[in-house]
Amino acid sequence: MSRTVYVNGEFLPEENAKISVFDRGFLFADAAYEVFPVLGGGIADADAHLARLARSLDELNFPTFYTPDEYLPLLKTLVRNNKLEEGLVYIQVSRGIQDRDFNFPKNTDPSVVMFTQQKSVAENPVAKTGISVITVPDIRWQRCDIKTVGLLPACLAKAEAARQGADDAWMHDEDNNITEGSSNNAHIITQDGKLVTRQLSNAILHGITRVSVLKLLEQTNLILEERPFSIAEAEAAKEAFCSSASAFVMPVVKINGVEIADGKPGPHAVKLRELCIGAAIESAAKAQATRPKRSVKVKSA
Amino acid sequence: MSRTVYVNGEFLPEENAKISVFDRGFLFADAAYEVFPVLGGGIADADAHLARLARSLDELNFPTFYTPDEYLPLLKTLVRNNKLEEGLVYIQVSRGIQDRDFNFPKNTDPSVVMFTQQKSVAENPVAKTGISVITVPDIRWQRCDIKTVGLLPACLAKAEAARQGADDAWMHDEDNNITEGSSNNAHIITQDGKLVTRQLSNAILHGITRVSVLKLLEQTNLILEERPFSIAEAEAAKEAFCSSASAFVMPVVKINGVEIADGKPGPHAVKLRELCIGAAIESAAKAQATRPKRSVKVKSA
Repeated sequence: MSRTVYVNGEFLPEENAKISVFDRGFLFADAAYEVFPVLGGGIADADAHLARLARSLDELNFPTFYTPDEYLPLLKTLVRNNKLEEGLVYIQVSRGIQDRDFNFPKNTDPSVVMFTQQKSVAENPVAKTGISVITVPDIRWQRCDIKTVGLLPACLAKAEAARQGADDAWMHDEDNNITEGSSNNAHIITQDGKLVTRQLSNAILHGITRVSVLKLLEQTNLILEERPFSIAEAEAAKEAFCSSASAFVMPVVKINGVEIADGKPGPHAVKLRELCIGAAIESAAKAQATRPKRSVKVKSA
Repeated sequence: MSRTVYVNGEFLPEENAKISVFDRGFLFADAAYEVFPVLGGGIADADAHLARLARSLDELNFPTFYTPDEYLPLLKTLVRNNKLEEGLVYIQVSRGIQDRDFNFPKNTDPSVVMFTQQKSVAENPVAKTGISVITVPDIRWQRCDIKTVGLLPACLAKAEAARQGADDAWMHDEDNNITEGSSNNAHIITQDGKLVTRQLSNAILHGITRVSVLKLLEQTNLILEERPFSIAEAEAAKEAFCSSASAFVMPVVKINGVEIADGKPGPHAVKLRELCIGAAIESAAKAQATRPKRSVKVKSA
């Protein structure tokens, strides 16, 4: 069965979900995006993702009449139309359509595309065994805090992981410190019980799930250290994991071929995953209970 | 009148020139491109641009069955259909359509898009007065030698130039050395008659017009030095210019508000522009004379 896809005001069968080749998202990667987890038919952490989308657009000097707040009812409608119970809903906002020109257009309507993906996100069997990662140089641009569709370096990192028989790649800077995963934040737990994660900067995405994880540390005996950590430190860690909206907390059991502890998901990673999914289910259920407001036209007397 | 645009095997009116929202060019900037100058209805430097496109695709591990050689007849047909005498023809090749996944698809057909743009390229009045540039930090990824559509940092650099009332931006590395312009290579001529241009590396695009310029130096009394040059050295230069396929040689008369020499296009830049356009006209005329080969089916006896 064909999905319904949202394209610039229309709900279309996916075969017909097309955009102009003159869209700046296609010609210049001049677009930002978000991926929301969907659980029990509800969208989790919607406000946080929409706030980050608004920030991305703002950092890119998108016109202020682009209003991410208005996208939530559309996202909800799309999830409902596709009868999506568990998976992801994606939104991409580009600077619109214009004959090819590096210079930004003025007063051009944004292009807005949304689609769903059915996936086991909470019940992902991969989390039971954990994943292996390799490390690759981080060759991305210097504004990785902005969530743009300029994702080719991340795709190349994943391709290199696949070539080496690993599941994913963690990227490192020139000092051999990990920045983040190809599409997730990277975390380790040291032998003396500290959760170490790189501090926020332009070098990494400000993960929504990263925020959840740090908040949930209260429910563990882990001490937080936000600082860069090296490849060697990661390989010698007691536990390691990634965080992202699509995988929540995903245990890492091998880095560059080196087994982390006994090569099985660590107890803290497993617990943080449970807590994180629990929080997401709660957030999704709350969102589910709030139906999109219908616009009510008030007749004048 | 609407242009004809080529999209995946079809010649379409531009209003109908659309691609799937699941195209990897749109979702991941997983696409390479080229821009060819068109003069007198002929495509200049076609072989060099197609060779660079092939290299870009190869560096990105695009499947080998993507065959840039076969694009030339289509480009020629498009130029002819649009009755384009002077301007540009653009080609973009993306890794094709797939449900969103960072991992590269296997055996997926490429998406190929081509369109023309009518422009005064040889007779560009701006070249008479030259352009002003500002300098901005180069925040791009570390493979600027690959011509991908990940052009948002370049767009942001041009936007910053516009905000400061300049025509374009030159980008500089952490050592305050110029890498290149936002969509062109950067060159200076020193007080003692040397043409200084940054050496090829992953930090800059290997410009086709840059090659032409260096070849044409034989016809001047300039000595070539391929090395990094600083912002300060550029501001103190005798002449400065950009090179690109769409602007050939474009004199730069102001850098960060500092007039270069007397603030008028320098004699060497003017001469190199003439020579460069002359070479492009010759190349375009030669291409024009060679009509696309028709495929001939030989009947078996």
